[in-house]
Amino acid sequence: MAKVLTGKEVSSALWERLAPRIERLRAAGTAPCLAIVRVGERPDDLSYERTCTRQADLHGIAVRRFVLPADASQADLAAVIDEVNADNGIHGCLMFRPLPPSMDERALCDRLAAAKDIDGIGSASLAGVFADTGEGFPPATAQACLETLDFYGIPVEGKRVAVLGRSLVIGRPVAMMLLARNATVTLAHSRTEDAAAHTRGADIVVCATGRPRAYGPEYFVPGQVVLDVGINFDEAGELCGDVDFDAVEPLLGDDGAITPVPRGLGGVTTSVTMAHVVKAAERALATATA
Amino acid sequence: MAKVLTGKEVSSALWERLAPRIERLRAAGTAPCLAIVRVGERPDDLSYERTCTRQADLHGIAVRRFVLPADASQADLAAVIDEVNADNGIHGCLMFRPLPPSMDERALCDRLAAAKDIDGIGSASLAGVFADTGEGFPPATAQACLETLDFYGIPVEGKRVAVLGRSLVIGRPVAMMLLARNATVTLAHSRTEDAAAHTRGADIVVCATGRPRAYGPEYFVPGQVVLDVGINFDEAGELCGDVDFDAVEPLLGDDGAITPVPRGLGGVTTSVTMAHVVKAAERALATATA
Repeated sequence: MAKVLTGKEVSSALWERLAPRIERLRAAGTAPCLAIVRVGERPDDLSYERTCTRQADLHGIAVRRFVLPADASQADLAAVIDEVNADNGIHGCLMFRPLPPSMDERALCDRLAAAKDIDGIGSASLAGVFADTGEGFPPATAQACLETLDFYGIPVEGKRVAVLGRSLVIGRPVAMMLLARNATVTLAHSRTEDAAAHTRGADIVVCATGRPRAYGPEYFVPGQVVLDVGINFDEAGELCGDVDFDAVEPLLGDDGAITPVPRGLGGVTTSVTMAHVVKAAERALATATA
Repeated sequence: MAKVLTGKEVSSALWERLAPRIERLRAAGTAPCLAIVRVGERPDDLSYERTCTRQADLHGIAVRRFVLPADASQADLAAVIDEVNADNGIHGCLMFRPLPPSMDERALCDRLAAAKDIDGIGSASLAGVFADTGEGFPPATAQACLETLDFYGIPVEGKRVAVLGRSLVIGRPVAMMLLARNATVTLAHSRTEDAAAHTRGADIVVCATGRPRAYGPEYFVPGQVVLDVGINFDEAGELCGDVDFDAVEPLLGDDGAITPVPRGLGGVTTSVTMAHVVKAAERALATATA
């Protein structure tokens, strides 16, 4: 039986470390505050907004919502971002994407102040992840992978990692973060021939293509660590990951490990988002008192 | 005998494409102009400056030199960068690095306007390479690898590529550029165990660690394409690459190919730098006339 790397314990440990930091911020008159910027009423966005708000409420992080209609213009959203940037009471901002196709998503992501870009969507944050410049924040989902490996004591240094998927939300940033931790990283994707040859040769496999249960036993070997980033719904409407968990988990054996979906990386991503808000608030306080 | 991918032909083809573009720019009253910013008198910098100036003179690109003493301050260099940014007659800027350790290199690189960052040193250019945002320019050395593959008709799509070295000048950017062209890319480095296992499994190997003749026959198999980015001097003071050319070239066989050092990617890098100046001038002209 492979070890099942559930996210709840990772999040609990993260919150334990955050609680005294939030206390200190509040004592210094800085209540950490997250802005959520949403365009339209997509069910996925609403669901994640509820999750974030619940987590924030529970732990003393304020949430301010900025909601625009689905037919909002580029200028409307730009004005909201400017308001978020200018408000010293807001420390981090989560802007749901994709934005409507009529908008220039790159320009709007870059408009958000790097200091408040807690989900790593702007160019400064992207350069921060790529070049280790320390600016902005890494995407929360990518950071959640590292937090999970660290919590469960899984070493990264010198390990061979295969990343399936090359999105800017997870594939490319997690590859760079693992590289910075001295892993040897292979980036594979939809155009890779024989992706299974790459995953089978790795110590750690990150599956992040958003294809429901696409990766079965032929992709894995015993003893591997499998991080399943996918949050998909199958044909029956059931939540599932990119990995065919039921078929893969037994194969990994006693030395293997795998994150489940649900109850895996998704919850850790929410906690990491909150941790980034706390860090942004600490940086803002340090700057204000410097 | 492996095919030897000399740089001269790549550069000639590049210049043939550039000549009419330079003509058009000049006819429109825009003489492409490169600023070279140098701190101190390092022999490597002086040598590359001479090469660039010679190439520029030959092809009708103006060069303006900004030279600071080795003990210049951060503020001195910042003032020069501001001058370069403000001068509409300058289209691209090459700033030699590393900067003196007393300076904040990242801040100074980021100070250069992205539109003039023809060697891809600023965060906007880095994000451009990482996230394909189209901002700035990729590092010239990384682009030189792609130009060479393209000139010799070596396909990248779907190929397995191993990149040895993870610097921001070449390893990481060339990995992202090859990934954007649908290669499956493995990034290996000094902390990789058994790097040879990774290089032997690849179709294309990029060697970019700056270790003289470090990669011998044990790293390669027949039929591979080897790009040697190294510009090193061996113990006898002889210019050499990262690859042990004499031992590796015969092994690659008739279907293999390798760039030599000297006469390989170095010259292509200079030409690419000039091509970026021309592109920067074209963008500036388009913006001015828009």
